[in-house]
Amino acid sequence: MQPQFNKVSIIGLGLIGGSLALGMKQRGLAGHIAAYDANRQALTAGIKMGVIDESADTIKTCASDSDLIILAVPVLSIREILAELTDISGIITDVGSVKRPVIDAARELFGEIPSHLVPGHPIAGSEKHGVQAANPNLFENHKVILTPPDSADSGAVSAIVKLWESLGAQVMKMTADHHDSVFAQTSHLPHLLAYALVDMLSSQGDSLEIFEYAAGGFRDFSRIAASDPVMWRDVFKANDEKVLDSLDQYIEHLAEIRNMIAAGKAQELEALFKRAKIARDHFAAINPGSIND
Amino acid sequence: MQPQFNKVSIIGLGLIGGSLALGMKQRGLAGHIAAYDANRQALTAGIKMGVIDESADTIKTCASDSDLIILAVPVLSIREILAELTDISGIITDVGSVKRPVIDAARELFGEIPSHLVPGHPIAGSEKHGVQAANPNLFENHKVILTPPDSADSGAVSAIVKLWESLGAQVMKMTADHHDSVFAQTSHLPHLLAYALVDMLSSQGDSLEIFEYAAGGFRDFSRIAASDPVMWRDVFKANDEKVLDSLDQYIEHLAEIRNMIAAGKAQELEALFKRAKIARDHFAAINPGSIND
Repeated sequence: MQPQFNKVSIIGLGLIGGSLALGMKQRGLAGHIAAYDANRQALTAGIKMGVIDESADTIKTCASDSDLIILAVPVLSIREILAELTDISGIITDVGSVKRPVIDAARELFGEIPSHLVPGHPIAGSEKHGVQAANPNLFENHKVILTPPDSADSGAVSAIVKLWESLGAQVMKMTADHHDSVFAQTSHLPHLLAYALVDMLSSQGDSLEIFEYAAGGFRDFSRIAASDPVMWRDVFKANDEKVLDSLDQYIEHLAEIRNMIAAGKAQELEALFKRAKIARDHFAAINPGSIND
Repeated sequence: MQPQFNKVSIIGLGLIGGSLALGMKQRGLAGHIAAYDANRQALTAGIKMGVIDESADTIKTCASDSDLIILAVPVLSIREILAELTDISGIITDVGSVKRPVIDAARELFGEIPSHLVPGHPIAGSEKHGVQAANPNLFENHKVILTPPDSADSGAVSAIVKLWESLGAQVMKMTADHHDSVFAQTSHLPHLLAYALVDMLSSQGDSLEIFEYAAGGFRDFSRIAASDPVMWRDVFKANDEKVLDSLDQYIEHLAEIRNMIAAGKAQELEALFKRAKIARDHFAAINPGSIND
């Protein structure tokens, strides 16, 4: 059977780029997979592991003659990569956690939003990093959000939908702004709160003891804080306005709860905890798999 | 072999009380187990499941002639139960998440802190509730903190240490104040932050969609928010001063981070994320089992 793509280029061979390459390879979706990464060791490992077929020296040589170019780098690196791709006709997609800056950068660099750009965001990850952790089934039963602009070519969009579905993912479409707003609340803010808590506790004088006795509550926070610092630095810079909106709302809510505790308003606190538990139980019911992952 | 206790009384037959009863029964640690609960259905279920031997009508009849009385109720219910136990000579222990109020209530009710009181806190729980979820191995490889006052009888303390160790737990001792301070930071504050986030997101107009797309970050928070609202209401009332100290410190830290994002200080953010990740990796190294529970 003919593969969906003759040549695929992966720019950025980390966990996500490597998992995409391996997943496509195992499913026969790509005839040839080339990769570029500023870190040469990742490319060497990728070749050795059989994740990719070719290790390219530059972004341009990697992307030339490709049907599909996947940008799997931290959000703020996408602009400089797009700048190398203005002559490329293959479909371009990315996996960044913030989508508006990708579209803005493309419009600026290409003069208008190129019709072969289909921004995407797979909702999958791991505490592990690097191509060494590449997992061909990483996206199975995970959601992937695509945010194609109105001007996107329908054939290009269909090809990217088909790619992700072939990898076992469930594809959804929305606008970039809506995506960035929803994820500011459900993903970026929780990560920020977790980083803040772990940082605060670890800077205490008795931090060793605090970690020693850390039970349920802290454990779940600390899992989140294991995520890649550079990736998250970029997310907060790229989605700063929407994150600040959510963060301000959260700080205000915390201040209200602070006052409930200070005033001994136990019933109000209990009502809040009950509301949260009901919401969570509802979430668990509509996302049965995601709770116990 | 002679059981460690001839008669054990469990006051409050929920997940923790039921798991203690079942664990003692399976290991032959108690000759006879009686239980009292304001909810008669819990007692009926406990008898039917073989978790307890006897269902008592009052706290006093339950506790009479007992070698050991275990209070497994929300923290703020402990005072009213202790008031029924002033004539009892058996060892009294509890499983509350806040320890200072237990000691204060005992001093007030008994005239002085009774030497047979050994306050305790098993660091174990579950999203499940009720005696139906009783698990005889719930405490295996979990920590239990005991906070015996200086006046505690050493024989009583040894008996409680032995009990928990027989159930597979690792016992540690510290003062009640130190316990309440450490847990305000590592457990009570994280739970409060999780409840606040889930409550805030679920009160948004598009909450259904927010839950629909909630990925890693929110999932871990929402797991925490599944905890029992009444238990947590009591924790925040009982440990209000120490929780407020931690919460104020956290709100201040969040405000600093807010300013970093607003000012585009990406390097400072990255440094903070790196510090948190290092701390978390350290935590994972000293608590290998607890990360992937």
